[in-house]
Amino acid sequence: MTTKSHDDLIARRRVLGGAATALGALGLSGWAQAQTSATTPLAAPAAKPLPAYAAWKNPSAVVVHSATTIETRRSAFGSSVITPAQQLYIRNNLPAPDAAIVENRDAWTLDVEGVKQPRSLTLAELKTLGLETVATVLQCSGNGRGFFPSKPSGTPWTVGAAGCVLWSGVPVRNVVAALGGLADGAVFITGTGGEKLPEGVDPLSVVVERSVPIKALGDCLLAWEMNGEPLSLAHGGPLRLIVPGYQGVNNIKYIKRLAFGSTESKAKIMAHGYRMTPPGGQSSPDQASVWEMNVKSWINGPLSDGGPVKAGLVQLHGVAFGGTRAIERVEVSTDGGQTWQTARLVGPDLGRFAWRQFSLEVKLAPGSYQVASRAVDSAGQVQPAERVENAHGYNNNSWRDHAISLAVA
Amino acid sequence: MTTKSHDDLIARRRVLGGAATALGALGLSGWAQAQTSATTPLAAPAAKPLPAYAAWKNPSAVVVHSATTIETRRSAFGSSVITPAQQLYIRNNLPAPDAAIVENRDAWTLDVEGVKQPRSLTLAELKTLGLETVATVLQCSGNGRGFFPSKPSGTPWTVGAAGCVLWSGVPVRNVVAALGGLADGAVFITGTGGEKLPEGVDPLSVVVERSVPIKALGDCLLAWEMNGEPLSLAHGGPLRLIVPGYQGVNNIKYIKRLAFGSTESKAKIMAHGYRMTPPGGQSSPDQASVWEMNVKSWINGPLSDGGPVKAGLVQLHGVAFGGTRAIERVEVSTDGGQTWQTARLVGPDLGRFAWRQFSLEVKLAPGSYQVASRAVDSAGQVQPAERVENAHGYNNNSWRDHAISLAVA
Repeated sequence: MTTKSHDDLIARRRVLGGAATALGALGLSGWAQAQTSATTPLAAPAAKPLPAYAAWKNPSAVVVHSATTIETRRSAFGSSVITPAQQLYIRNNLPAPDAAIVENRDAWTLDVEGVKQPRSLTLAELKTLGLETVATVLQCSGNGRGFFPSKPSGTPWTVGAAGCVLWSGVPVRNVVAALGGLADGAVFITGTGGEKLPEGVDPLSVVVERSVPIKALGDCLLAWEMNGEPLSLAHGGPLRLIVPGYQGVNNIKYIKRLAFGSTESKAKIMAHGYRMTPPGGQSSPDQASVWEMNVKSWINGPLSDGGPVKAGLVQLHGVAFGGTRAIERVEVSTDGGQTWQTARLVGPDLGRFAWRQFSLEVKLAPGSYQVASRAVDSAGQVQPAERVENAHGYNNNSWRDHAISLAVA
Repeated sequence: MTTKSHDDLIARRRVLGGAATALGALGLSGWAQAQTSATTPLAAPAAKPLPAYAAWKNPSAVVVHSATTIETRRSAFGSSVITPAQQLYIRNNLPAPDAAIVENRDAWTLDVEGVKQPRSLTLAELKTLGLETVATVLQCSGNGRGFFPSKPSGTPWTVGAAGCVLWSGVPVRNVVAALGGLADGAVFITGTGGEKLPEGVDPLSVVVERSVPIKALGDCLLAWEMNGEPLSLAHGGPLRLIVPGYQGVNNIKYIKRLAFGSTESKAKIMAHGYRMTPPGGQSSPDQASVWEMNVKSWINGPLSDGGPVKAGLVQLHGVAFGGTRAIERVEVSTDGGQTWQTARLVGPDLGRFAWRQFSLEVKLAPGSYQVASRAVDSAGQVQPAERVENAHGYNNNSWRDHAISLAVA
């Protein structure tokens, strides 16, 4: 029911240290890591090793789907509000750039276009223009794809392609003001990632470039720090565009260019990728893009994967978020949604872009329970029972899909 | 000006991996770790290795004074509000217990006395009684001792024996209610740590047992999680008493016994230790104990230890806290306290027990500046210019002592 801690990691590293090094010399370090993952409390669908750029993650808190897709286990979220970097998910659309880019962070440059005085700014210069910290839910728009019976292609995330983290950086509006304000006709904010593009293909077909509506300008941040540490390469360091309340793909890692203009990016990832395409249909730019997150919640504990929960008093807990809107309330059901009780919001409120923790104390007799949660945001939007079917498995906020089976004995 | 990140750690571990393992076999792993620390950006007063129970800490974010006293570097606090576990200070009064105690966390037992129905509770039982999350400043009462010209004995902490962290656990008041309420005559809450005591000495002379006034009852927590992870052995896992707003020593690690009674503990650490003893005097129980923290703040950046800061716009930032009281405002001076400007409070407000970040944008010409900060709490208490002199170097909240010299070029 709980993930391994630092303490367990230490013990394991001690045991594996010698063997891992020897195997590394033989090019077999993946094998040692797979053995390591065998000590995790929950069965992993595939015990792949952590990739080198994310080797500092807690291997027992995550499921490694691939080198660029790593999911937090539901059991690892715990009951605090912030997701530590060691257990935060990763979803990279391209391999991470060379680690050299985080060696001299302050020298990183960002081109700013579509302002009255367009220019290049170093990270050192950006740091002089302002300082803000914002807590946001970071979530892959495909989080919950694993619950689609249609099995859309893409990583079958359940709940763990999400986390709530703190970002420090400069508000984008400060940067715009320092460069004379927006040029005329700004309708979209477009960020371009600094990943190295594969050769021999049309750059537009691979570049990570996304546009969001200009209304997000007041909330956006150019962040160089996450959870109190310099932003890691794995999460977009040295500089990442944060669009609070928007699905993860809009939060451009290694941002090299920030442009304000009248049209959306023509990059494939914007024009065709991440669109709400009808089942069986083809993606096209006229379909809705995955922008603001919708209202969503799920239960994180207790879980009975490792054995039944003891009958009697039980503290059900989970997380709830409303994208750009605050959470108004959360209801919890132990009978698969036939009846609901209002849960208590617990812990500090980190602002409307963060998730809230909730808890409900229930008395459970031995048996089997379908435990679900249903969040309501400040605009009265209610988390729906059913997902919106779509070809690529985006934006799943169905409370039914996110319910858990709880065995009590 | 910044601490090393995860990325740097990975690079270093790759380089050192083989050597460290080989040296470990020779019992020389401390040597390799000392070499590691040589890559830190700031000169360390003593590049001691991290002790085994805290080997997962970020070695470049901390100064290891001893195996039981580890300080966060001022440059490592960054500008977010939460202190990650990897860089949080450690001050243990006794060596940490054997790691076996965190192997089966739910089996840990706590004796509760001074309630109507005294009994032993397992951690599994405690988890059924409630769930709360609170952000608190955790600070050693000797933080700032390093600024006393009298050089009191004890670790010469500067600012880094402090952090702001999230705790999840059960409110102590819930536990009291579940056990029938307080017995008559409860004036103090006494917590006893589960460290193994050295043999052949009077247990009262060494046991970590502290009492706080019963008025703290409404805020206290029995915590099993810190910053979203199971509480590590290094920080008191599996179970720690959290007394929000009180100096660190009152937050009993590995808590084995929680008692409500009419008198303070007779343990030496309570009766004679941690008292506000006049300079040159002897400690005695009639002197004030280090309980509530006083109002305090300091600047965390930018720092010019690694070279002067560039002239022009500068974003000065730091942290401020008021113990049990919220921060009302923070003022910043760049001329050693002759003139002050009100800083901006930035980032989420995590409640009155957490610290607030503050920032002030200033334009600095080349030169040398004495940068200080001065916090005011919700009761109007102003952080003083001078420390209260005392024999053991406790409770230093002098803004003058905490000021930094900033070189600008």
